[in-house]
Amino acid sequence: MINSFEIPFPDKDLQQKVSEVKKASLKICQATNDERKISLNKMASLLIENSEKILNANKKDLLLAQNKGISKSLLSRLNLSKDKLLIAIEGIKHVANLTDPIGQIQINKELSQGLILQRKTVPIGVIGVIFESRPDAVVQISSLAIRSGNGVILKGGSEAYHTNLAIVDALQKGLDKSSIDKNSICLLKDRNESMAMLNLEKDINLIIPRGSNELVKFIQANTKIPVLGHADGICHLYIDDDCNLDLAVKVALDSKIQYPSACNAIETLLINKNIASDFLRKAIPIFRKHNVQLRGDERSMSLGIKLSADHKDWSSEYLDLILSVKIVDDIDGAISHIQKFSSKHTDGIITENKKNAAKFMHVVDSAGVFHNCSTRFADGFRYGFGAEVGISTQTLPPRGPVGLEGLVTYKYFLQGSGHIVEDFSSGKETFTHKDII
Amino acid sequence: MINSFEIPFPDKDLQQKVSEVKKASLKICQATNDERKISLNKMASLLIENSEKILNANKKDLLLAQNKGISKSLLSRLNLSKDKLLIAIEGIKHVANLTDPIGQIQINKELSQGLILQRKTVPIGVIGVIFESRPDAVVQISSLAIRSGNGVILKGGSEAYHTNLAIVDALQKGLDKSSIDKNSICLLKDRNESMAMLNLEKDINLIIPRGSNELVKFIQANTKIPVLGHADGICHLYIDDDCNLDLAVKVALDSKIQYPSACNAIETLLINKNIASDFLRKAIPIFRKHNVQLRGDERSMSLGIKLSADHKDWSSEYLDLILSVKIVDDIDGAISHIQKFSSKHTDGIITENKKNAAKFMHVVDSAGVFHNCSTRFADGFRYGFGAEVGISTQTLPPRGPVGLEGLVTYKYFLQGSGHIVEDFSSGKETFTHKDII
Repeated sequence: MINSFEIPFPDKDLQQKVSEVKKASLKICQATNDERKISLNKMASLLIENSEKILNANKKDLLLAQNKGISKSLLSRLNLSKDKLLIAIEGIKHVANLTDPIGQIQINKELSQGLILQRKTVPIGVIGVIFESRPDAVVQISSLAIRSGNGVILKGGSEAYHTNLAIVDALQKGLDKSSIDKNSICLLKDRNESMAMLNLEKDINLIIPRGSNELVKFIQANTKIPVLGHADGICHLYIDDDCNLDLAVKVALDSKIQYPSACNAIETLLINKNIASDFLRKAIPIFRKHNVQLRGDERSMSLGIKLSADHKDWSSEYLDLILSVKIVDDIDGAISHIQKFSSKHTDGIITENKKNAAKFMHVVDSAGVFHNCSTRFADGFRYGFGAEVGISTQTLPPRGPVGLEGLVTYKYFLQGSGHIVEDFSSGKETFTHKDII
Repeated sequence: MINSFEIPFPDKDLQQKVSEVKKASLKICQATNDERKISLNKMASLLIENSEKILNANKKDLLLAQNKGISKSLLSRLNLSKDKLLIAIEGIKHVANLTDPIGQIQINKELSQGLILQRKTVPIGVIGVIFESRPDAVVQISSLAIRSGNGVILKGGSEAYHTNLAIVDALQKGLDKSSIDKNSICLLKDRNESMAMLNLEKDINLIIPRGSNELVKFIQANTKIPVLGHADGICHLYIDDDCNLDLAVKVALDSKIQYPSACNAIETLLINKNIASDFLRKAIPIFRKHNVQLRGDERSMSLGIKLSADHKDWSSEYLDLILSVKIVDDIDGAISHIQKFSSKHTDGIITENKKNAAKFMHVVDSAGVFHNCSTRFADGFRYGFGAEVGISTQTLPPRGPVGLEGLVTYKYFLQGSGHIVEDFSSGKETFTHKDII
């Protein structure tokens, strides 16, 4: 159990590894756009060259996993077919061609004659990513990290260890054929290392956990390093009374069943009391047909829902074909339920009333606020980011699906020629504060 | 002592207060630019109308403070002259006229026909600000918070309580004459409340502590709410060998003495060994003339510095007329010292060598990297932000001096007409991912 896990002190070996990544990150942050692009293309080439080795390593992991009696769904996620690998390699090339997130000038201003302030995007530094079994994630995360000029420390599921090792070996060989230090990518060997990494706040600038709620919460509670991610995905859909019923049922169904174990699937349906009877008459048989278990509050039970929802249901992420249903008096009732129970991932409204839509979208403070569409669209690929490193439910940026652009920060560059503040204090010099266009 | 302070559980009174601010924040986040502008102008008018009351309250605080035997420097910060109040009121009008930070469209994209993704800036929600005695800070912070559509909970120094109360009363009366809920601004009464507030992570979205290192560190360690700020301000200036010596001495002096107790004053001077003797020959008498105590490493002591710096000096924020001096072999030596000891606030280089300047500015990962100018420029007013709510030394945004723009976050607005993910999975629909210009 992760909760009783004690954070170990980083041993010399880990400290050395992390310090190598840190050193590499100080070089890659100076690399040009072209250098980073080329390195991604080399990473792709070396994956192709080493694909047989990688697929063999995966066979080894699969065999070991089967012998351990790992579940079918885990086995299927662990399995890296040639096709999956080729898709991952295509993904690298795609990321290589995305707009450079580094060096974007956000502020360009003359503070006074000859004193120029620029705010430019820069890499974050070293990013630690802890993820579960899918080995193609290594490829995706590494390409996003290198493209954005960051060093990356990876820890995948132990059952994929040989596959991940073979992939990282190929990626590093690719870097070695480019101008980027191969130590920019590093694979940790076990949980001891990934947990000890949480103590290295001097060298690691961001932790991205992609795993169970339990893991994410544990990491958030046990490190001083900023954590990007989400523990729960409790998403809501509110059916307003002024709505197209067929559209409402269709979107509600997709939001629940299209992939129920995804974080962007809904867990609770909120229905305006004026339309509840009509909506449920249509929806109940359709949800039943798709094996969705409905759990209702008192009012919705009087309209045909058989099982009752208790107070625990409103804060449960089922990740399964279960949906809690609550009837609310009006949009304010829906919003206040969401304010109380939403995990601020994605919440949607179905309405033809523009004023209600605008109100809902302004007042609900989730990373995604959706109108007349499925919550399942909350995803980096669907948003057109090319790839995502995770989804953040925190209030401050980056929030929502985080792609390349979320892996950068900014800093202020001030360039003078001997400017001192005393001259401005004494009135000898004055600020001009002119934007440079 | 703050370190032994136990975080109290929020009592009913505090919960009620915070919940009122939260409610108000759900209204102000829907207010238009004009509504927020007008409310700031009303705040300014009501401050003028109530200025006598405010100044009298300040006299009361001053008298109480004098009787308590508070230090002269604290008394001078506590003192609110009519002029200071008028400057603060002018500040509100200035903030009212700054560009609206809310509703800025950062992403505008068609995902598929009729499915439009927008990423727009939105208020953060409720911000808690804990600050020291200067009562004009109440005016500045409140105007920034309201302009950016946030609710704000304030806790000032106890010695300024009556002044702050009179100011907040006037500000709330101003809001009452506008369309903004007066509960958007709330003043806490004591430290018990401000510490208990740290437990209200459901209702408060950001804490900004402006005070001693001790206070900031304590808050960072004792809340799950994101904290914006800085504990230490250990800033460095590196004098490269290829530099204009007079310029170097002038900038070093300003960076140290212009206001030694500011966080952006330098604490350590790093000098390239090739120029150290020439630089120190010029600099030592000038620093001595300005009563700056120099503490040197072994090499700089052989060049005339009398006192020795020990390992504690490199990580000390003196906030005083003391400067530690170290001679380094080259720019890499300077960078590695900075990487080790900088608090990532602001670090500068003095050089005529463009390559070295670029290297320094890229590799040093501080919020501000300065070339040939004083570190004292690291400030929201000098950057032209109009006002600042604090300076952040964290890696992720907002970092550096945080003005209006740092008090916003963003969210994703997705607008469809019944779009479901299944249609895209099945291939019936395809993504277009076209930017809307």
